[in-house]
Amino acid sequence: MSKTIDIKKSVYERNEKLAAELNKTLSKKAVFCINILGAPGVGKTTSLLQILKKLDSPACVIEGDLESDIDTQKLKALGFPAVQINTGNACHLDAPIVEEAFAKLSFSNGFLFIENIGNLVCPAEYMIGEHIKLLICAITDGSDKPYKYPIAFEKADIILLNKCDLINYINFDIDFFNAGVSKLNPKAPIFIVSGETGEGFDEVVKWLQDNAKLIIA
Amino acid sequence: MSKTIDIKKSVYERNEKLAAELNKTLSKKAVFCINILGAPGVGKTTSLLQILKKLDSPACVIEGDLESDIDTQKLKALGFPAVQINTGNACHLDAPIVEEAFAKLSFSNGFLFIENIGNLVCPAEYMIGEHIKLLICAITDGSDKPYKYPIAFEKADIILLNKCDLINYINFDIDFFNAGVSKLNPKAPIFIVSGETGEGFDEVVKWLQDNAKLIIA
Repeated sequence: MSKTIDIKKSVYERNEKLAAELNKTLSKKAVFCINILGAPGVGKTTSLLQILKKLDSPACVIEGDLESDIDTQKLKALGFPAVQINTGNACHLDAPIVEEAFAKLSFSNGFLFIENIGNLVCPAEYMIGEHIKLLICAITDGSDKPYKYPIAFEKADIILLNKCDLINYINFDIDFFNAGVSKLNPKAPIFIVSGETGEGFDEVVKWLQDNAKLIIA
Repeated sequence: MSKTIDIKKSVYERNEKLAAELNKTLSKKAVFCINILGAPGVGKTTSLLQILKKLDSPACVIEGDLESDIDTQKLKALGFPAVQINTGNACHLDAPIVEEAFAKLSFSNGFLFIENIGNLVCPAEYMIGEHIKLLICAITDGSDKPYKYPIAFEKADIILLNKCDLINYINFDIDFFNAGVSKLNPKAPIFIVSGETGEGFDEVVKWLQDNAKLIIA
């Protein structure tokens, strides 16, 4: 088994090295890169669309999915430059695949959003050149997620709690959720939003623009 | 890279072999084993509780989570024998860890439910001794899941579409969902259920009991 672990470790380390190089390249091009994490169905693309509509700067998107290009087509139809990555059965994006996809966009001076594979476990462990990790959760998924899936919460720089338009129809213990997050990650701000109605996204976009200032000219 | 892939393949094959042996052991003990798959927050434990309440046979549970034993405590409080597996950062259960957990239960002649890690990608690829795979989806996660995460749908023997009590508050295209599933897997029945209200679980339990007849004495 130790041989397996060694090789896994070296694949992991090679990815971290490539991701750090890609991050430098993006910074030089004045591209602020956001790695969007979240379980399947939490509203990653819906939230991204709300952000893109409100953003004052140029932006482009890399979409990660096992299969299909449903979300990329949605983005393109609304006029946003987007590239699809299909991973087959791979459960997360990695730096080489993102570097290849970014080359197709020939983009500089603005925001690059990368929607990772819908998975609350593996994507949090792999850097893909990002400046920040944006984690999206949904109130419909229950308030126990930070306790069961700590890694994504530990690594997030900003957390969106989505689907707040459904708050009257379900049981969601916001105090239990907040306590779980702040124990793992006291620094990341939590924004309560609705991808359906747009509620809360002015504040999210302001936070993103403030945090991108050091990178975007 | 080919060395990495070879070792990954051999780890995978060793697991498949162990899983087949565990499956034989379970059959000999008249234990019908159900591998419960689904994304985080789709209502795996809530659905399981509805099944357990309606089931006429003895049953026990192995709970898989990265961390915490919230669900195991919930099950034990209701009088169901349950064992917790915590995987740390591992994104799926495997046969050796399940075999070890099952030994703690000293159980025969009945149903063994294994709640896998909440993840719509990796758990579908690893056998853990089960007779069938039960996939749970939630209408709150959107109707495009079969198109984006085909593997879990391909491998499922039975599919539960949960949270149907929220149908009036969200957009869910059932025809699009059904078309996606039947293209990947025309055999698996789809049951529309609510873990909240119990709706639809009589039919699920009947299906499970019918399918367990060859194994359970």
